[in-house]
Amino acid sequence: MSLEVVSQSRCFGGTQFVYRHASTETGTPMRVAVYVPPQAEHGKVPVVWFLSGLTCTEENFTVKAGAQRVAAELGLILVAPDTSPRGEGVPDDPGGAYDFGLGAGFYVDATEAPWSKNYRMRSYIERELPAIVAEHLPADMGRQGITGHSMGGHGAITIALRNPGRFKAVSAFAPIASPLNCPWGEKALSGYLGPDRAAWRDYDSCALIEDGARLSDLLVDQGAADGFLESQLKPGLLEAACAEAGIPLTLRRQEGYDHSYFFIATFIEDHLRWHAERLGV
Amino acid sequence: MSLEVVSQSRCFGGTQFVYRHASTETGTPMRVAVYVPPQAEHGKVPVVWFLSGLTCTEENFTVKAGAQRVAAELGLILVAPDTSPRGEGVPDDPGGAYDFGLGAGFYVDATEAPWSKNYRMRSYIERELPAIVAEHLPADMGRQGITGHSMGGHGAITIALRNPGRFKAVSAFAPIASPLNCPWGEKALSGYLGPDRAAWRDYDSCALIEDGARLSDLLVDQGAADGFLESQLKPGLLEAACAEAGIPLTLRRQEGYDHSYFFIATFIEDHLRWHAERLGV
Repeated sequence: MSLEVVSQSRCFGGTQFVYRHASTETGTPMRVAVYVPPQAEHGKVPVVWFLSGLTCTEENFTVKAGAQRVAAELGLILVAPDTSPRGEGVPDDPGGAYDFGLGAGFYVDATEAPWSKNYRMRSYIERELPAIVAEHLPADMGRQGITGHSMGGHGAITIALRNPGRFKAVSAFAPIASPLNCPWGEKALSGYLGPDRAAWRDYDSCALIEDGARLSDLLVDQGAADGFLESQLKPGLLEAACAEAGIPLTLRRQEGYDHSYFFIATFIEDHLRWHAERLGV
Repeated sequence: MSLEVVSQSRCFGGTQFVYRHASTETGTPMRVAVYVPPQAEHGKVPVVWFLSGLTCTEENFTVKAGAQRVAAELGLILVAPDTSPRGEGVPDDPGGAYDFGLGAGFYVDATEAPWSKNYRMRSYIERELPAIVAEHLPADMGRQGITGHSMGGHGAITIALRNPGRFKAVSAFAPIASPLNCPWGEKALSGYLGPDRAAWRDYDSCALIEDGARLSDLLVDQGAADGFLESQLKPGLLEAACAEAGIPLTLRRQEGYDHSYFFIATFIEDHLRWHAERLGV
């Protein structure tokens, strides 16, 4: 599998790349943004994955979060994948809604037609892309962290829960705490996976924890003025699940902050330092 | 004149606003992005203007430069205007080119029809918008700095040169050093001002300096890998003009950096600290 450079720009002494590559999982070309810090000139460095939210591509985090400054200081590779397959023949929400189909892969392997052919973001993020990163980038795959925003916060936590030991640090910004219990999640999981809610549990942070999955700890920032807080995100469910399971959760309710990248930009430094500590940086 | 809030988001303890207001200069509604730092809760704070480049709106700098973090630390209001009038009836480049008309106001008061009716970005930025800022924002108008990128770097330097004493700090990222001597400038100034090149000199940093305008000092960052360096930007012309006039110019050629916001994001902290020092912060 080869990585084609779409663009590259010097940034804080390192390089911000956008790559394109063929994906066997999604059956499409996929884009991924990768920041390589200056320290990578001298050897492999730890990797932090950032999974984005609804409507995003690989670009949003890359241009809006200001994460490269901190990654350059700490010596972290940042990998920001796209949020769904795209391109000719890839089906989209029949009504063109923002919360299903393109830009809304929900980090699942779809089992329902017509989604099951391309919508394999779980396997893409869990298996295919890590192999590509390990082969082509100066990445120390023994030192990985994962974080994300909203739908991507759900992705980060569920992927970490399903792959014990892979990620030494896990955090999230305003994650969808329980897709089983919110309109975004119910629409996505019923569409991609069908009506059997038992099949959804693999894609629900709270259900995975109830079913025995564990993390060594978890940092979550949540804007208290986030318009999706009560209806979709429901951090209290994650708080209860972690408390019941004895998972140390640091849940910070940030007064006045909304769901935007201005919120992420404000707290990304805290998150990357949290990751760096756990990655032995 | 009233300011309507289009959006507001908490960011680094302050607030990122986007405002809309009627402009008598352009005859259109105009948008402007304003970051108000936490220090403004306790009184007026200095202002730094950021003028954007071709194709930009008030949004690019606001979401891509990561400037709020530093402005919040230093206590600076950041004002990022749009780059042209927009809306129904505003003429655009007949061929839809990116370098004239919408998104390309070049910070001039056009004298040629049909541009002269709306394209009055000089008077908008020099007179109308400062009055609005002074009236509605916690801005210490006795302590202002100005900077910008590319076309906006040209705007920042020429506006500072034409308004001696108004700006205590002036800097630019990859400015168009001399519109009289590059294709972007010749197209814009001939279109907006007509063929008499004598009328262009008010909109050319080097010509203004030759004609006697002065700055106390000037910081310019220029990416050495910027694709527009030789053909459009020509920092050597500004360097020569400043040397001849005895203006202390700090021109930093940044190895490997291009014309993108990754370049601006990397060096915005240096610029805001340069401004803060001169604004008595």
